[in-house]
Amino acid sequence: MSESRLVTVVIDAAGGDNAPNEVLAGVTLALAEDPSVHIILTGPADVVVPYAGASERVEAHPTTQVIEMDEHPANSVRTKKDSSIVVGCQLVKEGKADAFFSAGSTGACMAAATLIMGRIKAVQRPAIATVMPTAGPPTIMLDVGANADCKPEHLLQFAFMGAAYASVVLGVVGPRVALLNIGEEPTKGSMLAQESHQLMVARVPNFIGNIEGRDVLAGVTDVIVTDGFTGNVALKLLEGTSKILLAQVRDAITGSPVAKTAAAVLRPALNRLKERLDPDTYGGAPLLGVDGVCIIGHGSSEARAVSNAIRVAAQAGRGGLTDQIAQAIAEN
Amino acid sequence: MSESRLVTVVIDAAGGDNAPNEVLAGVTLALAEDPSVHIILTGPADVVVPYAGASERVEAHPTTQVIEMDEHPANSVRTKKDSSIVVGCQLVKEGKADAFFSAGSTGACMAAATLIMGRIKAVQRPAIATVMPTAGPPTIMLDVGANADCKPEHLLQFAFMGAAYASVVLGVVGPRVALLNIGEEPTKGSMLAQESHQLMVARVPNFIGNIEGRDVLAGVTDVIVTDGFTGNVALKLLEGTSKILLAQVRDAITGSPVAKTAAAVLRPALNRLKERLDPDTYGGAPLLGVDGVCIIGHGSSEARAVSNAIRVAAQAGRGGLTDQIAQAIAEN
Repeated sequence: MSESRLVTVVIDAAGGDNAPNEVLAGVTLALAEDPSVHIILTGPADVVVPYAGASERVEAHPTTQVIEMDEHPANSVRTKKDSSIVVGCQLVKEGKADAFFSAGSTGACMAAATLIMGRIKAVQRPAIATVMPTAGPPTIMLDVGANADCKPEHLLQFAFMGAAYASVVLGVVGPRVALLNIGEEPTKGSMLAQESHQLMVARVPNFIGNIEGRDVLAGVTDVIVTDGFTGNVALKLLEGTSKILLAQVRDAITGSPVAKTAAAVLRPALNRLKERLDPDTYGGAPLLGVDGVCIIGHGSSEARAVSNAIRVAAQAGRGGLTDQIAQAIAEN
Repeated sequence: MSESRLVTVVIDAAGGDNAPNEVLAGVTLALAEDPSVHIILTGPADVVVPYAGASERVEAHPTTQVIEMDEHPANSVRTKKDSSIVVGCQLVKEGKADAFFSAGSTGACMAAATLIMGRIKAVQRPAIATVMPTAGPPTIMLDVGANADCKPEHLLQFAFMGAAYASVVLGVVGPRVALLNIGEEPTKGSMLAQESHQLMVARVPNFIGNIEGRDVLAGVTDVIVTDGFTGNVALKLLEGTSKILLAQVRDAITGSPVAKTAAAVLRPALNRLKERLDPDTYGGAPLLGVDGVCIIGHGSSEARAVSNAIRVAAQAGRGGLTDQIAQAIAEN
């Protein structure tokens, strides 16, 4: 069974606003949930060594440097060779681990993975994907921020990379792929969208055409392809809207004493809803197109987000995500 | 008082999914709310003549053609010279009315207004704006779909046009203007965003810099400037998200018999919330940059949306929106 195949995930114990406590708590959860997952921890010796000492399935790989959230990504990766992020990516590159996870600087993780793991052959631009909760099954959207300016060929490759991820990590057979656009007809949208549509019609299996902003959460497709500017605006708008709407719902239903009592009854249901809408439920965001599995978490990741990301990283490693992407790109 | 100055609004009685009944009901509401508003109705004689006969403040201007929602915008405007949309725009052009409103084809309204009213001098691209409900005061976003591909100079003009609208229609003194981008720093984002940022820093009064997707509904600015592709995706995502989230909230709170009882108590509060989030509350979307006031409604507009759009059209007409935009563009 592929589920039980041994897999090793490197975790940046120094990454994120809640490091190291929430990161380590997430590792503990993941170890309990998946008996075949092994962990290598990069980070300060006084954090990683004692933790590793308590479990046979955890190895400490102490590092002496940390890349802060506000440092210049490429510069910090070049100068901080012994940082938890750089060393983590190296361990994957050297085959000592199957996947890397960090809740640290997104830019630094992207730079380190791209520089150290390298790009998969013929991949022009790695892209960040995110799994979104929808009215139906979860949907993968990419690019959500790695490439602010894209060409049609980039979007075509995003389609293959997103489909591979849906197949390997979400278990979707023959994933449907859609292009985010401002009209359903092929002739609608920007030059980029129109040209990308043409390429995708010709070459992407199960391409279902354009979808509009209102369909992003409708669960009508498995993969949504867009440029990193539009995707990033859409993702952050979604996060902001969910937060503001739920806050307004809370305000609305606690407006009167009677409503307040009623709201108390509804709180568990609303909390379940909040959880379902929470991106952390689906783990971190994979950087697709680099030659190794790299999952990047929200800076605010808590233990559950970390354990979900480890689960996703393990699935991607076991399922051969990188090989699947390489094959799809090579064939097209 | 400018509020009581006589203003004439042309209404397309044939436009929208609910025409003519909801359109006429909206006119009736508007006439009752504003004693100084006069209406000219374009549309089929059997609709507009009887209605006009019942009010001294309504004039019928029967037309023999209707542009359907799925017709090619520019072609239909050229061939259907006696359509309710084309004639409506002509009445504004000829000075017989101060503003035009239609809930018909957005594309046809844009084409007719641009071809017939013409562009304001030096305006390169008219843009569609929308007023969004936020956690604070309403925010205007533009362009939300007229221009899928934009240049930095277009976005600069959108800033002036949006600020004029905020000032004239929403009564904002010294409106704050922000650029929608994927990072707060000036060097973040696409080439378009970076170059637009530079132009706006230099030339837009009260430019507050970049905002990200998560801030769109935060009420931190009066005007949000973006290209028509990103703006359209964002607007439709927002509409879709609100609908899906409120449906999920309803599902969540009607899950158990106890919750169902509690939900009944909360229904009025949730309905008020829904109304506050409803874009119809703020009337239709203005097409800015054309030489006349043109407000385009949702195809699904009901009476209240129509009366709100008439109120907005009247404010824009009385406040000299077109002159304000012309002056801002001429000075820059």
